[in-house]
Amino acid sequence: MGGDKAPDEIVAGAKQAVEELGVPVVLVGQPEAIGDPGPCEVIAASEVIAMDEDPGQGVRRKKDSSLVRAAEAVRDGKASAMVGAGNTGATMASALLRMGRIKGVNRPAIATPIPVPGSTPTILLDAGANAECTAQMLVQFAQMGSVFAAGRYGIDKPRVGLLSIGEEETKGTPLVKETHALLAEGVGINFIGNVEGRDIISDRVDVVVTDGFTGNVALKSMEGTLRFIVGKVFEAFLSSDEAKEAANVLLPALAPVADELEPDNTGGAMLLGVDGVCIISHGSSSARAIVNAVRVARDSVDGDLVNRLRDSLSG
Amino acid sequence: MGGDKAPDEIVAGAKQAVEELGVPVVLVGQPEAIGDPGPCEVIAASEVIAMDEDPGQGVRRKKDSSLVRAAEAVRDGKASAMVGAGNTGATMASALLRMGRIKGVNRPAIATPIPVPGSTPTILLDAGANAECTAQMLVQFAQMGSVFAAGRYGIDKPRVGLLSIGEEETKGTPLVKETHALLAEGVGINFIGNVEGRDIISDRVDVVVTDGFTGNVALKSMEGTLRFIVGKVFEAFLSSDEAKEAANVLLPALAPVADELEPDNTGGAMLLGVDGVCIISHGSSSARAIVNAVRVARDSVDGDLVNRLRDSLSG
Repeated sequence: MGGDKAPDEIVAGAKQAVEELGVPVVLVGQPEAIGDPGPCEVIAASEVIAMDEDPGQGVRRKKDSSLVRAAEAVRDGKASAMVGAGNTGATMASALLRMGRIKGVNRPAIATPIPVPGSTPTILLDAGANAECTAQMLVQFAQMGSVFAAGRYGIDKPRVGLLSIGEEETKGTPLVKETHALLAEGVGINFIGNVEGRDIISDRVDVVVTDGFTGNVALKSMEGTLRFIVGKVFEAFLSSDEAKEAANVLLPALAPVADELEPDNTGGAMLLGVDGVCIISHGSSSARAIVNAVRVARDSVDGDLVNRLRDSLSG
Repeated sequence: MGGDKAPDEIVAGAKQAVEELGVPVVLVGQPEAIGDPGPCEVIAASEVIAMDEDPGQGVRRKKDSSLVRAAEAVRDGKASAMVGAGNTGATMASALLRMGRIKGVNRPAIATPIPVPGSTPTILLDAGANAECTAQMLVQFAQMGSVFAAGRYGIDKPRVGLLSIGEEETKGTPLVKETHALLAEGVGINFIGNVEGRDIISDRVDVVVTDGFTGNVALKSMEGTLRFIVGKVFEAFLSSDEAKEAANVLLPALAPVADELEPDNTGGAMLLGVDGVCIISHGSSSARAIVNAVRVARDSVDGDLVNRLRDSLSG
């Protein structure tokens, strides 16, 4: 029931996922809004937590909401993973309150893959779950991000960087300096030191660790810049008939890059640290985005992500 | 003496600035390194603070460095403004220690113009001077940024936004919430509320206020994304002979955008809050960048920026 294009695109994506991936998909929501569920099972949920609703209040008050019921389905073993394109905070709160945390995890974090055309994505976490963080939380994010990058993208010993405003360990806030010191002591990951904003969309680092405030600002600054530049390039392509023809010639070379950068193709972000698989898709998710999110969910379950996280944090 | 291309490009830029702008330029540095100063006066300074040197130590120990001597020239009325492309922290420390602060200013901030092709730039501050800030500091940054945007770009009642992770005043860190409350009380500026990372490179806001850690991360994330995308587009343009021809057709439409985005054309960032004009140019500044920085310095002096800042902060 969540997302700018719900429920139509979400339901369409669920049906496509069943067909394309052979994964059984359970739709959770108002049966009358869902309409024909096709090959999908339906779990009825009468309430909806709106996109702009307060997450904590929404989850506490709307016990029969699609988000809460979806998280319960995972908790109760009726589903192996949940996927949502709605209110991010409420998705997180539902997962946290119903699935619980992996033992030892202080706070879950949102891990967002930043596409780097020509290379594996860079995992940025926390991308917005926790505006305020402690050094201990950031160390766990580093460990969880490393497991995720290895499991999801097959990266051997992922290079983990701490986001700061200079490479020297003396740079940054007290939080960054304290975290740097803890990570440098060795916490079972391949820590490469501080990295800067410009390193995120590059092949210099695999996992970038930061607090949820900074991570969200960085993510949205990059998204804004990308959208702005792509918009300007398209304006130029459409500026005259000659330009349109020229643009057609360039399409074969540009299309693969655009394809890798397209948010619908990343499959969404992952909530790491809860005791179950929870994928947070973009609010503007199309059916295609949902198919990819289901693929990521399936891969995460097949790859035993939650148990891998459990093992890495129990050390 | 500062910058990746010093002193050659800096000296060349200074000479060009005299010719093109008719502004007398004083070169501060080692006379033998400067070589022929052309029409420029030279103030000898025997020491250089390196790009990677600790700013505080550098300024304390190297009293005869080009940065310290340049700031003293402004203090003593031998120059109306200083321009530097070297160590940012040391430039700031020199200006702060030699020129002093404008009365009432808690801490100076780096105001960086983010080019928004087709519109006036967005002023982002603090872009890295103060990793840690108080709400009172951010309020002053908002006031100084507003004066700068009005004076430098002629923007009437600049729209000032507070960088956060959601538009609602309940979003963000305690620092952001406290600052939001103070700004909303009315501090003589046109406060439009919270803005997000994606709003920086847009025409929705004129001044974006944040702490120096977040600001620096946002700035470098945007720079990195921009450089990455431009690189990929150029790769596509050069991917075949047909592509090269097509790219030539598109150049007239793309060149103006590329031109506005080119860092050399912004003239650099401004250190706001010190009692004098101090322009911080990009480390990679070419002669062209220096000419533009001198232009910004001249305009700031002619526009009486420091006194305008003084007036806005004395209220």
